[in-house]
Amino acid sequence: AGKSERKPAVRSVDFPVSVVLPAGGTGERTGLQTPKQFCSFLGRPLISYTIQAFERVSWIQCIVVVVARENVDLMTDIVQRFQHRKVRVVPGGSTRHRSICNGVLALGEGEAEEESPAADGPKVVIIHDAVRPFVEEEFLYKIAAAAKEHGAAGAIRPLVSTVIATTSEGYLDHSLERAKYRASEMPQGFTYDVIYQAYQRCTESDFEFGTECLHLALQYCGTNAKLIQGPPTLWKVTYKRDLAAAESIIKETLSQSACIITGGSAHAATLADGLQKAAGALHMELDVIPDLMGENTGYLLKEWNFIQISVNRCSLSEVEDLLKDLEAANRALLHPPVIIWVHLSASDEPSISGTVAEPAAIMDLASAAKLRNVLLYGIQVHQSKDTERWERSVLKVAEITSALIRERSPALVGQLLQA
Amino acid sequence: AGKSERKPAVRSVDFPVSVVLPAGGTGERTGLQTPKQFCSFLGRPLISYTIQAFERVSWIQCIVVVVARENVDLMTDIVQRFQHRKVRVVPGGSTRHRSICNGVLALGEGEAEEESPAADGPKVVIIHDAVRPFVEEEFLYKIAAAAKEHGAAGAIRPLVSTVIATTSEGYLDHSLERAKYRASEMPQGFTYDVIYQAYQRCTESDFEFGTECLHLALQYCGTNAKLIQGPPTLWKVTYKRDLAAAESIIKETLSQSACIITGGSAHAATLADGLQKAAGALHMELDVIPDLMGENTGYLLKEWNFIQISVNRCSLSEVEDLLKDLEAANRALLHPPVIIWVHLSASDEPSISGTVAEPAAIMDLASAAKLRNVLLYGIQVHQSKDTERWERSVLKVAEITSALIRERSPALVGQLLQA
Ligand SMILES: [Mg+2]
Ligand SMILES: [Mg+2]
Repeated sequence: AGKSERKPAVRSVDFPVSVVLPAGGTGERTGLQTPKQFCSFLGRPLISYTIQAFERVSWIQCIVVVVARENVDLMTDIVQRFQHRKVRVVPGGSTRHRSICNGVLALGEGEAEEESPAADGPKVVIIHDAVRPFVEEEFLYKIAAAAKEHGAAGAIRPLVSTVIATTSEGYLDHSLERAKYRASEMPQGFTYDVIYQAYQRCTESDFEFGTECLHLALQYCGTNAKLIQGPPTLWKVTYKRDLAAAESIIKETLSQSACIITGGSAHAATLADGLQKAAGALHMELDVIPDLMGENTGYLLKEWNFIQISVNRCSLSEVEDLLKDLEAANRALLHPPVIIWVHLSASDEPSISGTVAEPAAIMDLASAAKLRNVLLYGIQVHQSKDTERWERSVLKVAEITSALIRERSPALVGQLLQA
Repeated sequence: AGKSERKPAVRSVDFPVSVVLPAGGTGERTGLQTPKQFCSFLGRPLISYTIQAFERVSWIQCIVVVVARENVDLMTDIVQRFQHRKVRVVPGGSTRHRSICNGVLALGEGEAEEESPAADGPKVVIIHDAVRPFVEEEFLYKIAAAAKEHGAAGAIRPLVSTVIATTSEGYLDHSLERAKYRASEMPQGFTYDVIYQAYQRCTESDFEFGTECLHLALQYCGTNAKLIQGPPTLWKVTYKRDLAAAESIIKETLSQSACIITGGSAHAATLADGLQKAAGALHMELDVIPDLMGENTGYLLKEWNFIQISVNRCSLSEVEDLLKDLEAANRALLHPPVIIWVHLSASDEPSISGTVAEPAAIMDLASAAKLRNVLLYGIQVHQSKDTERWERSVLKVAEITSALIRERSPALVGQLLQA
């Protein structure tokens, strides 16, 4: 998510595009109670990540999410809570095709209430899975453009395993030549006319047992879909292990950079400089700024991680200000930002009053921040005139910072760690 | 790994079984420099996990690991470092089939040096992938038994995506009926005669372009392999996201239980009791013991996580003893055990001398332990007569403990956290 936001905008489309997102799965393959699309990652359900992947694309107009009737209220709550703007929630049917068909019809109906239905309706419909959250704008563009040109288009991937045909007794009959076949993935795109007609003409048996929209377009509209190889990120969250993989991708995306705020102090700038050198080896980019004023207010809108250095002060007032700024920017809506307060004491000896007073203060502040979806941690580091010892401390601050940012553990908020 | 160790032993086989493990892949699909089989998880390369999955099966005699010539030394080092006992390292060929063939021939050669070659050679050869570390004994048994009975046997899985045939211009030609096909996975098993003959008879083109051993057995020996549906855990570490999934599975396996050592104190037992109640909600089983004497020494050989409670003592001597015991048991060879030292102070007020003295001591001990592959963390908790406050503290100890055990973060060892 964060990665895409930093890329330059890709080409736009000059025709109306809308999306149907079937989200009726029951999640039986993960072995979990909650269907995968409603499983939470850093406090937000997977379906909301997928919606966001479409919502941030300027040329996509409407996203119809089709859910089982018993999940309509849940889904409506998710849309409100995460302030999704382009979404309509529609109840699904008893099979995948019936649900997608409901979504396609809803796109038509919605427009029929407007003044000039034909002109306003979507030219192209993209169909995607709720459980493929990492689809990127560039690939959506390719599918939309190819769908407009060819009537239908679909993502494909090379086969990972050999595909074999079995005899009815469970023996090998023959194996397919891998190079001739592909796995059909999502997203797929269709002109509205093709997907609408395909569902008008197909049989009850198609509705009941079919799974492949490209097949319906071919059989009932004579449309050979254009196939486009997609990136591995199109993969579908299917098994329990995929939940861990998805969480790891989300966390990695949020951990690529951090912003160090020095407060203008020379001591803090020296520490920030050391952290920048160490952070390269830890695969994280660090920007150093004196404060979040002027041009630097931009960091509030794009950065997920803040390292606030305080020198010789036990006060958390800078952190309190940062929390207020993040709240004003509505920054914690989609992901939890991380704040690491680094307390740099210039004396070699730990101050006794300091170590006793701070833990309670940062714990209280972190508990309050957590309710606002911000993760606050503390690190205490003592400046040393012994160069070797100082370098060891700086490296330790970098390692702890990197671990806290990558793991984003709610259980460890408010801790004051020693570097 | 840990999960299997707790299961009762499955049926044994009464014929010789050996394994060929091709590990020559270059890992291009993960986008990493290091081939996947050599990527480290908690300090140990993936290939070692896969070897361990076979080594712990009593009826498997020999594991031939086939690696690219330039990795023979690296592989030999891994075998020594992690004390693998059943492994022979063999240089591979230029393709998958050439490498597997080298492995099969090496199994024959090895035995030819013995007194009665025919009698001692393996009856069944299991072929597996180095990057499928989670294969279980029960499934290996099914494959070995079916291979002996039918000449060949292979794991299959349902197709996750529809498989489609493409035209030469990149359009949809037709889609396959998903129910009739399966994905061919690993492990596969063959009688030694069938796999040996298949490689004797197959062509240079098979060696160069083929990928499927079951296909060779069918084409050159007329052997229709018996196909057996495997569990999802057979999946192959292929993409970068799979590395995160594998790490998560390994960590989860190590985090299913912990052992609380109370030292016989009543205060500690009360805390342990509270932790047991909270741990259920955190999906972890906790055993409470007074010490590691007598029957309880068994925990040293099977448990990966230890929670040592010390009451009113700043001394780490119990943790030092535990470290010595783990070292004597060679416990940290395959996975890093976690020790969490919980310092319970019976007074409501934090002791000033305590908070200053302990952080340095536990940090030093943790640094030494880390060199021996043991992860040591500390938690400080104050006993309170206010019930509500005490319950909050116990819950916090449980949450922090669970997070530390699940994340196994090397960057956070030696920290003394506040509950
Ligand atoms: Mg993306
Ligand atoms: Mg296993």
